[in-house]
Amino acid sequence: MAAKPDGSTDHDYDADPAFALHRGGKLEVRSTVPVRDRDDLSLAYTPGVARVCMAIAEEPELVHDYTWVSKVVAVVTDGTAVLGLGDIGPAAAMPVMEGKALLFKEFGGLDSVPICLDCTDADDLVETVIRLAPSFGGINLEDISAPRCFEIEDRLRAALDIPVFHDDQHGTAIVVLAALRNASRLIGKPLSEMRGVVAGAGASGVAVSRILLEAGLGDIAISDSKGLIYEGRDGLNPVKQALARDSNRSALKGSTEDALVGADVFIGLSGGTIREDCVDAMADDAIVFALSNPDPEIQPDVARRHARVVATGRSDYPNQINNVLAFPGVFRGALDVRAHSITEGMKLAAATALAGVVGDELSEDYVIPSPFDERVAPAVTKAVADQARKEGVARI
Amino acid sequence: MAAKPDGSTDHDYDADPAFALHRGGKLEVRSTVPVRDRDDLSLAYTPGVARVCMAIAEEPELVHDYTWVSKVVAVVTDGTAVLGLGDIGPAAAMPVMEGKALLFKEFGGLDSVPICLDCTDADDLVETVIRLAPSFGGINLEDISAPRCFEIEDRLRAALDIPVFHDDQHGTAIVVLAALRNASRLIGKPLSEMRGVVAGAGASGVAVSRILLEAGLGDIAISDSKGLIYEGRDGLNPVKQALARDSNRSALKGSTEDALVGADVFIGLSGGTIREDCVDAMADDAIVFALSNPDPEIQPDVARRHARVVATGRSDYPNQINNVLAFPGVFRGALDVRAHSITEGMKLAAATALAGVVGDELSEDYVIPSPFDERVAPAVTKAVADQARKEGVARI
Repeated sequence: MAAKPDGSTDHDYDADPAFALHRGGKLEVRSTVPVRDRDDLSLAYTPGVARVCMAIAEEPELVHDYTWVSKVVAVVTDGTAVLGLGDIGPAAAMPVMEGKALLFKEFGGLDSVPICLDCTDADDLVETVIRLAPSFGGINLEDISAPRCFEIEDRLRAALDIPVFHDDQHGTAIVVLAALRNASRLIGKPLSEMRGVVAGAGASGVAVSRILLEAGLGDIAISDSKGLIYEGRDGLNPVKQALARDSNRSALKGSTEDALVGADVFIGLSGGTIREDCVDAMADDAIVFALSNPDPEIQPDVARRHARVVATGRSDYPNQINNVLAFPGVFRGALDVRAHSITEGMKLAAATALAGVVGDELSEDYVIPSPFDERVAPAVTKAVADQARKEGVARI
Repeated sequence: MAAKPDGSTDHDYDADPAFALHRGGKLEVRSTVPVRDRDDLSLAYTPGVARVCMAIAEEPELVHDYTWVSKVVAVVTDGTAVLGLGDIGPAAAMPVMEGKALLFKEFGGLDSVPICLDCTDADDLVETVIRLAPSFGGINLEDISAPRCFEIEDRLRAALDIPVFHDDQHGTAIVVLAALRNASRLIGKPLSEMRGVVAGAGASGVAVSRILLEAGLGDIAISDSKGLIYEGRDGLNPVKQALARDSNRSALKGSTEDALVGADVFIGLSGGTIREDCVDAMADDAIVFALSNPDPEIQPDVARRHARVVATGRSDYPNQINNVLAFPGVFRGALDVRAHSITEGMKLAAATALAGVVGDELSEDYVIPSPFDERVAPAVTKAVADQARKEGVARI
């Protein structure tokens, strides 16, 4: 289906409302200052701009006051793990990154720029983002495949003194922890007495497991495509080796289904499926987060027959686990206080604040707020900024 | 003058209106589509966005239709030659790049993103821009020091199939040629019968000399800090060696002043000065473009005593040579037809169209339109797009 000379194609894409909405893209860059005449131009551009440049050259911190850098986030991907679509490359990833930028603005009031990079080697990606960094107040890594994403984020966090945050990992982790805190409150069982099973050891599976362990979940068993992860299993990469050391204290072997017998929590991040009888085999008041999109590991109405709380990644069922509940407020809070980084403490504070928005309205169908709840971003922003100040990573 | 805990400083920068205008920066990114509810989100983001991504993965040309890529220009610098301020680094360059982005929008209707890179090695810059390229419809290089800028632009033009344009070179060259065409028409002497002197062999000096030779100027002598450039002079870099071969056919040696005796055109791009008696020594109906900013090589009212036409880079004198007359229309024309590159023919066409806007109003004080003349960008856009189609570099 080649493009015709006028750029159109034979396929009537625009009959699909998603395509119609995407025509011409979803973003624009606008001036926030007037350029009506020579006087305006002589302030916004030469010669006036030269005085601002010289001041920044002499006193680098002024870049935060007199440019847009402090409020602009780079949404960076290499297009290797886009949504559930896999390695579709940088150009095809652009609609998602534009969407992300749009969400940063709508929900966090932050400007952001989609940067789809034509390189996939970890060294190249790290090097490129370091070179780009002076133009941005924060780096949101997006849809970079595991296990490269772990190394890339670690190295960028070490190299840069601005927030670096791989949203597929930590955005998901924060929202899952918030929902689980509320589910725990609902059923009256503390996290420390719960045993969880996480299906999937990619970016989100690893980060969710890590934050749940940090938050004090009793134990957790994580599975990948080869089954449960335990110390000494053959062929584990370094990230899974570390995870094996810190999880699965009963050294369960076998499948996800095996581990679910008697478990309190299931978190699906694998794209696979879970049989109804496996949910039935879980503990009383079971909690099922079937987060694969667009097809949850088990249909929520089926899971609900056996589980007390069910969440999915979908907007057409209750309890939607959506990263947009976290990343706009996390970045806004970090950028508002010019934090050097986003720490584990700041992520935990974000989860606690997000859970807190639900308050007294807590129920089986309401363990996490709606993405359109206007209380969410301000609550997360404040918690993250406060925590940054408390930990001494804030500049102002 | 360290920042205080609240981020302010002791210096009252905002008493300067240029600083007051720059507070918080000059740009924002906005959504062009609504995000009011779940339905909107399901089209602009998941799950609807996945269909758009898959279509682009299958048919890459669709990225032009369904993302913002085709209308967004990266304004890329390494901060090594910012205005007349020199090597002030990427952060201090940001106000200029934001200003440039603002001009792209206001005058060309194009979105653009300032990218200030933390690397100065030519290999690193080329590599980084190639990696960034999938995110942009064109690359505007800005304020990169000579002679690196020549190699960097050449290599990027060869590597990328989108427009790459070093504005300090070609923007200036286009506007100078346009003004000179009109001055030639005014005094009734064809370019081929004129002899010119260009002071300065940096980015703009080289490009101006090149375009004037292409346009048929009779002869031209170019000087750098060591005097006039001629074949065989010691210590010429490869760019100047090539220029020496193509210019200064009389093999003049000595200084800029020496070459000015009897010359028709002087173009100052050096930051130096020119004495009044040197202008007096030029031919009748002399043309003086004293383009250094903020201080022209000679005050325009002094030059005007001896020259028929005087232009500067300043907005407070007649005949302002301002790149904003060229780059918005050049990029808009190239992007409108999805040109693979910006050719020499497209630059010459831009200059002709720009000169044409002046029309019958031509006078000594009006050889180039005002930056605020609304006819300029459409005229340049059309000429560049038409020429791209004529040369077969347009995709649509």
